Amino acid sequence: MSTADAPATTGFAQWRNTQQQRVERALSQWVPADAPAGLGAAMRYAVLDGGKRLRPLLTLAACEAVQGHAAAALRAGCAVELIHAYSLVHDDMPCMDNDVLRRGKPTVHVQFGQAQALLVGDALQALAFELLVPADGSLPDALAASLCRQLALAAGADGMAGGQAVDLASVGRPLDQPALEAMHRRKTGALLQASVLMGASCGQPDAQARLQLQRYGASLGLAFQVVDDVLDVTADSATLGKTAGKDAAADKPTFVALLGLQAAQAYADHLLEQAHDALRLSGLTHTDTLHALADWVGRRAS
Amino acid sequence: MSTADAPATTGFAQWRNTQQQRVERALSQWVPADAPAGLGAAMRYAVLDGGKRLRPLLTLAACEAVQGHAAAALRAGCAVELIHAYSLVHDDMPCMDNDVLRRGKPTVHVQFGQAQALLVGDALQALAFELLVPADGSLPDALAASLCRQLALAAGADGMAGGQAVDLASVGRPLDQPALEAMHRRKTGALLQASVLMGASCGQPDAQARLQLQRYGASLGLAFQVVDDVLDVTADSATLGKTAGKDAAADKPTFVALLGLQAAQAYADHLLEQAHDALRLSGLTHTDTLHALADWVGRRAS
Repeated sequence: MSTADAPATTGFAQWRNTQQQRVERALSQWVPADAPAGLGAAMRYAVLDGGKRLRPLLTLAACEAVQGHAAAALRAGCAVELIHAYSLVHDDMPCMDNDVLRRGKPTVHVQFGQAQALLVGDALQALAFELLVPADGSLPDALAASLCRQLALAAGADGMAGGQAVDLASVGRPLDQPALEAMHRRKTGALLQASVLMGASCGQPDAQARLQLQRYGASLGLAFQVVDDVLDVTADSATLGKTAGKDAAADKPTFVALLGLQAAQAYADHLLEQAHDALRLSGLTHTDTLHALADWVGRRAS
Repeated sequence: MSTADAPATTGFAQWRNTQQQRVERALSQWVPADAPAGLGAAMRYAVLDGGKRLRPLLTLAACEAVQGHAAAALRAGCAVELIHAYSLVHDDMPCMDNDVLRRGKPTVHVQFGQAQALLVGDALQALAFELLVPADGSLPDALAASLCRQLALAAGADGMAGGQAVDLASVGRPLDQPALEAMHRRKTGALLQASVLMGASCGQPDAQARLQLQRYGASLGLAFQVVDDVLDVTADSATLGKTAGKDAAADKPTFVALLGLQAAQAYADHLLEQAHDALRLSGLTHTDTLHALADWVGRRAS
């Protein structure tokens, strides 16, 4: 790291800590403790005190870049995080990945049983949409409706759920790089991209800015997955907070299996450079935090 | 049946057939065939060619009662139906009710595997919200946002998912009548009531009309469940299109177990009379179809 980078990195670390705390407080306020028959407690277990909150941070930073409605972006980012959290709960279940460890804790179905885990995921998805239309009318209707549509598209059959279906169907079958990328653009990319674009929707970016933020989200989303594949073979379970070596053991196609470790790392760097490039072309002036978030995604691999 | 009732019943049967076909066509158009890796086909299997479509019919009839925006009501009713359909897919899974027969066909997890069934339910919930915010802007933003909020509340931890958590926790434990009613008001009542109120939101009912439609939905929703409990002991699997005697076998609390068969039937009649009464107090003039739907819910028990 050059000395010139140090203050920016420090500033970003402060921003990140501050915003992570804001997100944590907001989620703690919005995920109900009093839902019946232990459902609330299990929902809070699934959502609170864990995770880097990358998706809400992207939403907040994109909103900052367009100088948008910050309170709306907090809701939007938390809604995306709830969709992410529900997907982890369902993914971990025995009929999917059958994972017992997540963020260093027993997974939800291990802790509360499979039936409750199923309901936790279902209720978190509904709560995500509830957050986007606050009872107090504090979000303009047009914004609330647009955010609901973007989130539904990113979460559904053309987005995350569709990507998971492709992932299921691909176990033990060799996917080439275009097919692997298409799968990940849906499975994790769609929601990461939506995090950025929903944040942008909280302001009034022009068409060029929106297009470049879309490119930023797409490149960063794919980079995130390549980095994840690299970490799956280079990091241990304690560092990851989840079971390491899982994908290789499950005979799932990964970028490392396809390209080799070194080329996969280089590909992640290339994608992140594309993300930075998109920001430079956006015409937006408040993009420092989005740049820093791309670097942060990359540093997970080092 | 008195001869005076015959024309009204015939008119309702025609209305019902026509609207069921409209709903079926709309669902067939909106549930994607092309979602990847078989997910679209499995979603269509879960949703199409089955069911009485009670929920969309309630939405359409409530919209008719308030002389509202009919195309919006069709979307709203189909969105509610997708939530209902997803809940059946997840309920039938081995970790929940472990049922193999639904509407006379193998359940989704039997046909497509548990992992795909999980994704089908998840994707159908997202699709429900997508329907409420059409890309073409054909629903006013305020209406789209309001419908999203109502649906999220009815589906989530305070509604359907919460009721299912209570249901899970109540197996083998004696619930008294207030606790049983509280469970069902969430588990099935919230979504049935939302069907009515989302239809009403497609028009401009005054406060009194909205309050009485809320009462109608609550009474009809609970009556539906009491009738269901009666059918569970009086009908066979072929008539039900699902496994009969299931609740009693699972040692689940039911209104029949609590009150006896005859008193449960009388209680259903009483609740339906409350529903009719609410319509009479609503000040609305186009309530014939809502009256007829209440009678239809009751006739399932005879």
